Formats: sequence, structure tokens, C-alpha cells
Amino acid sequence: MSEDYREMWGSLGLNLEAHQGLLAVLSDAYQGIYLSQENRPAAMQYFDFVVSEVHGLRIVELLKAKSEGKLVVGTFCVYVPEELILAVDGVSIGLCAGADVGTEEAEKFMPRNTCALIKGFMGFKLAGLCPYVESADLIIGETTCDGKKKAYEIFDEITKKVYVMELPNKKSDDGRLLWRHEIERLAEKLTAVTGKEIALDRLKEASRVVDAKRRALQRLSDARAHDPAPISGLDALLINQISFYDDPIRFTGKLNELCDELDERVRRGVGVAPKGTPRLLISGSPMAIPNWKLHSIIEQSGGIVVGEEACVGERNFRDLLGDFSTVDEAIGKMADRSIGINCACFTPNDGRLADINDMSQRLHSQGVVHYALQFCTPYLVEAHGAKNSVEAAGLPFLRIETDYSMEDVGQLKTRVEAFLEIVRQGRPS
Amino acid sequence: MSEDYREMWGSLGLNLEAHQGLLAVLSDAYQGIYLSQENRPAAMQYFDFVVSEVHGLRIVELLKAKSEGKLVVGTFCVYVPEELILAVDGVSIGLCAGADVGTEEAEKFMPRNTCALIKGFMGFKLAGLCPYVESADLIIGETTCDGKKKAYEIFDEITKKVYVMELPNKKSDDGRLLWRHEIERLAEKLTAVTGKEIALDRLKEASRVVDAKRRALQRLSDARAHDPAPISGLDALLINQISFYDDPIRFTGKLNELCDELDERVRRGVGVAPKGTPRLLISGSPMAIPNWKLHSIIEQSGGIVVGEEACVGERNFRDLLGDFSTVDEAIGKMADRSIGINCACFTPNDGRLADINDMSQRLHSQGVVHYALQFCTPYLVEAHGAKNSVEAAGLPFLRIETDYSMEDVGQLKTRVEAFLEIVRQGRPS
Repeated sequence: MSEDYREMWGSLGLNLEAHQGLLAVLSDAYQGIYLSQENRPAAMQYFDFVVSEVHGLRIVELLKAKSEGKLVVGTFCVYVPEELILAVDGVSIGLCAGADVGTEEAEKFMPRNTCALIKGFMGFKLAGLCPYVESADLIIGETTCDGKKKAYEIFDEITKKVYVMELPNKKSDDGRLLWRHEIERLAEKLTAVTGKEIALDRLKEASRVVDAKRRALQRLSDARAHDPAPISGLDALLINQISFYDDPIRFTGKLNELCDELDERVRRGVGVAPKGTPRLLISGSPMAIPNWKLHSIIEQSGGIVVGEEACVGERNFRDLLGDFSTVDEAIGKMADRSIGINCACFTPNDGRLADINDMSQRLHSQGVVHYALQFCTPYLVEAHGAKNSVEAAGLPFLRIETDYSMEDVGQLKTRVEAFLEIVRQGRPS
Repeated sequence: MSEDYREMWGSLGLNLEAHQGLLAVLSDAYQGIYLSQENRPAAMQYFDFVVSEVHGLRIVELLKAKSEGKLVVGTFCVYVPEELILAVDGVSIGLCAGADVGTEEAEKFMPRNTCALIKGFMGFKLAGLCPYVESADLIIGETTCDGKKKAYEIFDEITKKVYVMELPNKKSDDGRLLWRHEIERLAEKLTAVTGKEIALDRLKEASRVVDAKRRALQRLSDARAHDPAPISGLDALLINQISFYDDPIRFTGKLNELCDELDERVRRGVGVAPKGTPRLLISGSPMAIPNWKLHSIIEQSGGIVVGEEACVGERNFRDLLGDFSTVDEAIGKMADRSIGINCACFTPNDGRLADINDMSQRLHSQGVVHYALQFCTPYLVEAHGAKNSVEAAGLPFLRIETDYSMEDVGQLKTRVEAFLEIVRQGRPS
């Protein structure tokens, strides 16, 4: 990134020296993990550019939007309806959470035994390294796990920007009603902050934008069902990560261009790895940018990742909002759509087990890698049921528990290689 | 305990050899921690007896109740209204969760990074060491933390007895309504299982029994406000632990006898430790029997524990249900009473901070020890706010994170001794 941004970063209160170091590390990692891949689709060039400007041009755009009176809203979770934010002319962005940054600072507030993602978002803020959290006017949290639920209390002490939506623990009628009311309350909150009512025409336009983004992500997912796979899991993961912070209209256009290229590759039988490369589905905890660890281990070990049953992945785009005739109807649909996401925060959550097997079948996955961040209790516990369910469907299952550090990469590589051998032999683990 | 129970334990499917070993360890621990205390109230004799028969006579009683057609209901949490269970002529008991037992078995199902209490209840069951879980006809779980919420899914797979109540994440109007409905559904469930309606007269009788128990526990708490303290924190903790599984009418009678003795001690200025002994309040995670670790360290180090802002403690008995004229009114009061408990599962939970300072003042505590089980995220995070709030009130604060093992006892003792020195000097930590 250019020197020209230093003034902007300084005005946002970032720690300039540490930030420069972070960008250098990220750039090296991107070079090593992404740009070293062979036979990438040409249209990935746009996404490479977006990553290179993740703390640059995109922040310029956010600050411009703010200067035009637009609300910048930071979120952490696919349960927050982006449509509402766009309907008040706001900008929705994911916040930095995917790297070990400011860990020591974060551990002054949070237990050491907290997952890397939560320590990450606290650490990025405390170390002055996230231009997104500094640009945000409002940060929307949600009660999806103990760690986030309680961290937001402290995050609000620090940022004074946090608004928490209550997600229920069960998908009961009462839980659904509570969640619907939470979405109504978010609409009221957004109106109160911006002075803009949620008007039907604006909401329809917002919904068209967000559903178009979801459709493009569905196209990307569908393309990965082919053998040979026309795109690497790493690149597909990156696009899913970028979907949380790029301008949605531009992103959708560029992703559809990429998908056209992928369709052409499929017609011509071109892939990023040979036909017959072992195909794996990943299921579990979210992977925030730049958490590319597991995909990179798998694809460097001779496998290919064909899907992510995860919030940074299929859960984010599988269901569209669809048509509606009134704001009230739209809010009901938003509540139904999002509570249809099978996050491990719910009990029971059998729908997720069905999702894993459905995705395996649709994407011709030959094995499931269950990924949980260390200390992410909901997914760590669900690994038990997922293993039983995947193996009952005849596929091998590998359970990975890790964090953002690189210390266990060698050990994970050994386990992944052994698993790929099992997959090649077509037997349950 | 007598050999006579072996047949009963065998019929419950316990692992007899391991069980004998457990009882021997417990008996030694009790001898060393409890019976070695000096100047105990004479009326503690009853509670000593109850502990000695915890897996014996009380189980005989439960099996007798079952043979008379009574429902035995196991619970883990103060949010489950005992009144409803008694109103259908059921017996309410807490389940074993206070010792490192069956850990290796439990870790086959739960992540290693799970709190000792949750691994404890899984482990007790899996190792065949809990006659309570075997006697129970129904086990009522609740969604108070990620670990329990997800563990109950697996616990139900294993026991086929689990019914989960959904507790909300916020004390909003919607959350309160959802919780009220959950209590109504529990009433329906208990009726469905027993064939007995929740009748007003039976519910009134049940409420009299439970409120009388709460009143007796309040008397015990009030007695501890005096200096010298007429009873040790260890003994008071034990009584609170026993309140979860003893027959409530007998328990209340015996506790009131003890309280009469404590009142007499107060009148005569008799204490278990000299006047002026440093007085500490403990606040945090629940301490299931036989988890006496922190109290025993504090009292062996020259301090006295004067109260527990905890579920095994004040949260369990502070508020009475009181009078009602209809079943519907009673259910509303049960919902209001229990959601008034300030568990760290709620966000925000500022009420707990006020409770800690109120209890400190009422009990003339000179310092607060914040106790969290390792991996108990909700309490570990709230330690941050509790420290600020306690120190703002002018009292020193000590943060303890531990488990059931004895490995850190030396280190904890050193920290507690240093804290007691600070307390003696009357300055914030």
C-alpha cells in the first residue's frame, strides 16, 4: 500500500509503526499463500487488488461515505441483516478479527482461554490496527456465544459504539418472535441514528443488492462442484471474506465476471488442480481475513477445498431474502431467513448436520474436515455429532482444533496428509 | 458408609470398585477439611451425617420415593423452579458435578477446554459414580452457558432423560416473556410425565416448603454478618450445597436449629475465629459438592469467608416467591423471581456488581475474592467489571481462576495469604 495513506491512518488514531509492520506481514503472507498459486482465474486480479487496498482505498471510500453523511456500521455475524443497514443508506463492514494482533492487550480484558477471533477483534482495536473499527459509527454485536456476548460489554466500554442484538438459544416460536422483535428494534435504532425511516422502496433496492451478492456467491459455490475444480478453495475463501467488507454492488459485478470465467473453465474442463484431486468440505467456526491457515495446509498437501459450511461461506449466502410487499413482511422474512442459519449457538442444531451432508453431496466432497477454533465451545462440542453424522453418510471425518498461530502447522500438515490418504482410498476415517 | 448399600449401588449400575474408591477419598477429604475445624456448632452434626450418607441413605430415600410413584428430578441450576417439581409430588435433587471424576471419559465427548463442573457431571455419569443421575427420572438442563447448553445435547444422548429450558441472554421484555413461557412449558412437561396437574393448593404447599428453606438459608447468611463469625465459611458452604439435594422440610428444620444455636453464639459473642479475623466475600462460579477448595485455602490461611455471591449461595435464596392466588400468578412470580437472579449468562449483568457491593456491606466483608472456574467464560469476563466496581467501593479484590485439581493449591495459598495481608491493612489491592 501507498505511503499516501499514512495521514489517513494517523487521523484514525492507528499506531502507525505497528500498522506498517502488520501490512508488511500480510503482504508477505499473501504473496506466499495466494500469489504463488498456479493457474488462477484471471478475474482474481480484482480480489488481489481489493486485498492490497484493504486498509487503503476501502477506508478512503468509507471516510468519503461518512463525509456524505452515511452511517458506517461494523458487524461480526451473519445474523445481522445487511439489508437494513443499506436501507438507511449505510455501509456494512466486517471488523478485523482474523490475526493474532494485540493479544497481550486483549488478555488484560479477556481470559487467555478465549478464542483467537474474539481476542483478535479486541486486540486489533487495543493495538490501534483496525481502520474499520475506527471508521465505524456503530458496531452491532450479537449473543451467539459466551465469549462474544461478554466481550461486547467490554468492547462497548472501550469504543462506546456497540449495540447488541439478542439471538435466542433455541429456534422455538418464542425464540423466533424474540428475534423478529430484535430486528424491528435494530430498524428503529438505525432510524434513530440516521434520522432515516426504513422506506419500502429503499428496502427493496437494498434487498436486490444483497440478494444479488448472495446469488453471485451461490454461483461461485456451484462452480466448485465440478471436477476438476475451476478455482482453489483458498481463492473462494478469500472472496467470501471480501464479501463482508467490499462495496456490495461492485463486488457482485466482479464476482459475476469471475463466475463467467469459471463457467468457461468448466466447459473447457480446466481446473486449478488435476481431475481426481481429493475434494474436502470444511465445516465449523468462521475464518476471518487473513485466516487462510487450514485451506492453505490442505491445498499445499494435495487436496482441494470445495466448500465451507461456515458463516464465512455457505451460511452467509445460501438463502435469499426474496420478494416482499411491505416493510413488515420484509422484517419477518429477514428474521426467518437468518434464524434459518444453523449456527452452533442453537440447541439443538441438527439442521447443521443435515447441511454438512447435503453440501458434501452437492459439491462431491469426499471427506469433511471439522474446523473449530480453540476455546470455541459450541463448534468443538458439535464435532461429536458431526462426526457421527458424516461417517454414517459414508465419508471420512477429520477433527481440527487450532488457533491463528503457526506453531502447529507441521503437525496439522501431517494429520491432513494422512487424512487425504484415507480420502484417496475412499474409506471412512 | 455401610456395606449394606452395595446391592443398591449395583442395581443402579454404578461401578462398585471405583465408587468405593471415590467414597474413601471423599471421607478422607471431609475428615481433613471439615472435621478438623475447631469450635464448630453442635448442630453441624446433622450435616456431617448427611454428607456421610450422601450416596447412601439419601439414595435409599429417593428409591423409596420412586417406588411410591414419585418423580425424581435432577437439576443443575437455580433457574429451575423447585416449587413446580414439589407441586407434582416430585423430588428435586442436584446432580454430582463437584469433583474430577471420569475426566478421560468426559473428554471423549467434550473439549478438554471445558470447565471442571461440566466435565464433572459428564464424568460422574460416564464413570458410573453418580447414584443421583441413575435415580433421576428426568434431568432438567438450561441454556446458561455454551458449555452446558451444548453438553446437554450429548448428555441426553447418553441418559435419554434431559429436558432443556431456554434461558434468554438479556432481561428484556421479550426475554422475560420467553422465560415465563418456558416455566409454563416445564409445568406442562411435569404434568405430562406424572399425570398430575399443577393444582393451586399443592403449589401453595410447595411454595411454603421452598420459601421456608430460603428463609432458613437467609437466617444462616444473616448470622455470618456478625464478628466474630459464629460459623465457618466452609460449614456455611456445605449447608448451601446440601440444600440442593436433602429433603427440604427436614433440611429446613435442622438448619433452623443450627441458626438458633448461631443466634445464641452471637448473643454470647462466640465465634469460630477470633473477632477481627479478616472477612472475605466470595463471588463467581458455583461450587458443587465436594468443591471446598477455595474456602478451605482461605480459612486455613487465617481468613473467614462470610458470604457467597454465587448460585451455591446467596443467588439461590435471596428472593422468596411469596404469596399468590392463582397458578398463573405463581408462574409469573416464579419467572420474575428467577430472572431476578444476576447470573453472568445475561448481558449486561450490572445487577451482579451491585449485589457484590451490597453483600459486602451487609456482611461487613473487607475484601472480595472473585472465583471463576477455568474456562467459565461468563464469570471470567465479568471479573473485569467486578474488580472496577469493588475497588471503586473501596475494597480490595482478588481474582482466582482455578479448577478442581490440587496442583495449584500452594500457589493459591500464597496469593490468598498476600491478599489477607492487604485486607488486614485495609487498603484496596
